Amino acid sequence: MAPSKESQALAELFGKLAGAWPSDGDPYLSRCIYEQVHSVASEAEGVSYKTVSAGGRPSLWIQPSGASDQHVVLFMHGGGFSFGSTNSHRKLASHLAKACNCMSLSVEYRLTPEHAFPVPLDDCVDAYKWLLDQGYKAENIVVAGDSCGGGLSATVPLAAVERGLPNPGAAVALSPWYDLTNGGESFTTNEDKDVLSSKESVKVITDRYIAGGTSKENPLVSPIYANLSGLPPTWISCAGFDMLRDQGALLAEKAKKAGVDVTLDMHEGQQHVMEFMAGMAPEANDSLQRIGEWVRKKIGS
Amino acid sequence: MAPSKESQALAELFGKLAGAWPSDGDPYLSRCIYEQVHSVASEAEGVSYKTVSAGGRPSLWIQPSGASDQHVVLFMHGGGFSFGSTNSHRKLASHLAKACNCMSLSVEYRLTPEHAFPVPLDDCVDAYKWLLDQGYKAENIVVAGDSCGGGLSATVPLAAVERGLPNPGAAVALSPWYDLTNGGESFTTNEDKDVLSSKESVKVITDRYIAGGTSKENPLVSPIYANLSGLPPTWISCAGFDMLRDQGALLAEKAKKAGVDVTLDMHEGQQHVMEFMAGMAPEANDSLQRIGEWVRKKIGS
Repeated sequence: MAPSKESQALAELFGKLAGAWPSDGDPYLSRCIYEQVHSVASEAEGVSYKTVSAGGRPSLWIQPSGASDQHVVLFMHGGGFSFGSTNSHRKLASHLAKACNCMSLSVEYRLTPEHAFPVPLDDCVDAYKWLLDQGYKAENIVVAGDSCGGGLSATVPLAAVERGLPNPGAAVALSPWYDLTNGGESFTTNEDKDVLSSKESVKVITDRYIAGGTSKENPLVSPIYANLSGLPPTWISCAGFDMLRDQGALLAEKAKKAGVDVTLDMHEGQQHVMEFMAGMAPEANDSLQRIGEWVRKKIGS
Repeated sequence: MAPSKESQALAELFGKLAGAWPSDGDPYLSRCIYEQVHSVASEAEGVSYKTVSAGGRPSLWIQPSGASDQHVVLFMHGGGFSFGSTNSHRKLASHLAKACNCMSLSVEYRLTPEHAFPVPLDDCVDAYKWLLDQGYKAENIVVAGDSCGGGLSATVPLAAVERGLPNPGAAVALSPWYDLTNGGESFTTNEDKDVLSSKESVKVITDRYIAGGTSKENPLVSPIYANLSGLPPTWISCAGFDMLRDQGALLAEKAKKAGVDVTLDMHEGQQHVMEFMAGMAPEANDSLQRIGEWVRKKIGS
């Protein structure tokens, strides 16, 4: 089926962002520009917000009216570990929380280049622990995110278990960045179709994340190299025109072989994180609705 | 009394924005950078949102839980008619709506340089008319805004009455830009204290607004030149370190002489639109609380 007219909005937006991107990679300017990803979503109605400190990080508490207060989505925004915020992803995270019938905590983890690995990951694990400390049961927590936040939806459970914490109940990854070595054909074959990213732009953020001295093959950097058998039930949404498309498919295959309950949902003809168009494009709404149904079944929310 | 430590956040933020500002005035980049004004406010708790089309413009409907649904603030964001959005001012508008115990409509009016005067003004008058068409009584509507939106809080009533519409019940102006000829000593004496603006940056946005061929002295461009006798009861909040400080004081004086019910609230030692720090700095909270008490008395919300 041909992509909807509405869903062209994301390619148009990404074109503007890529066109305005600072050639010297200035982090502040890049962040200001990337913030605009919110603009292709509508407000999720009936949701209210609270500024909270979670595990030491300023965070956004998202409260859909009438949703279960026993279940929560830990939302980790995308932006290559270098951009993005609870503000840029507020509407997306809110639509996701509503679909899952959960509360949500969106965490303002620290970013590169100021804070390389493991800081962003540690901040998210701390936020997960904070949720446990608030009394949420691990099995009632979904870890979720887009792009690098999709990667975190795998590395946070892996790191949490290493720290002796229980596994969350489920994971949701939207256009995940699972592999910082960027394997998979789509990384090359989609470079012209992916309006947001290029090999060059991905190299900049990759180098920033591992600048602390770790390797791209570290399983907590690139979960594609991890022993995946311990992953929670995982939903992976991939977009057909995304350079990262094959990473999601490959991790799904590896995880399935390792015995993980994993679902791959492929959106042909769509850009990276097509769910940014929540409330505006039918494809984004469909994706979030399917995710919500799956989550509610998995964690009982 | 010395400004609070918390209230230094706005000067710090403005320093970052001014430092990142594109030297060629690129509108898209400027808008991306200016969006960050939201970042010094907290979320207003218990408020939910809805994306609506109001008078043909995409707008944000702000619903504080338990507030009167018979009373509404028409909020017009600042940004020199060239930047700013319902997103950049969402938290500020929400805190204001809560303080006033009202619903609020924040309008995404069209911006310069693409749309010079009278388009931004007309979009806001259309939004006002849309509220009347929804059944809100004029006397239950407050027109409010910051900076150029503060100017609009005077020109929208003047233009509405010219169009045969009834006057709104009250107006609230935060650090208003009432005079595009930029009279008043503070425009010069505060240039070093005002961290956001400079004579040069104000000239750019002034020229953009009048580019359609009107004059700076047009009363619907600079209400300081208007016959003010028809203005609704008006609250004007001014900041001591703002280049625009004296414009607010001067309009208050002229309006009082013309018989208008006007209150001037001066915040010494504060930056332009100190209310951006809603929920974060005591001075911003105090200002909004006083405005809320005044509005509730004026329109009975």
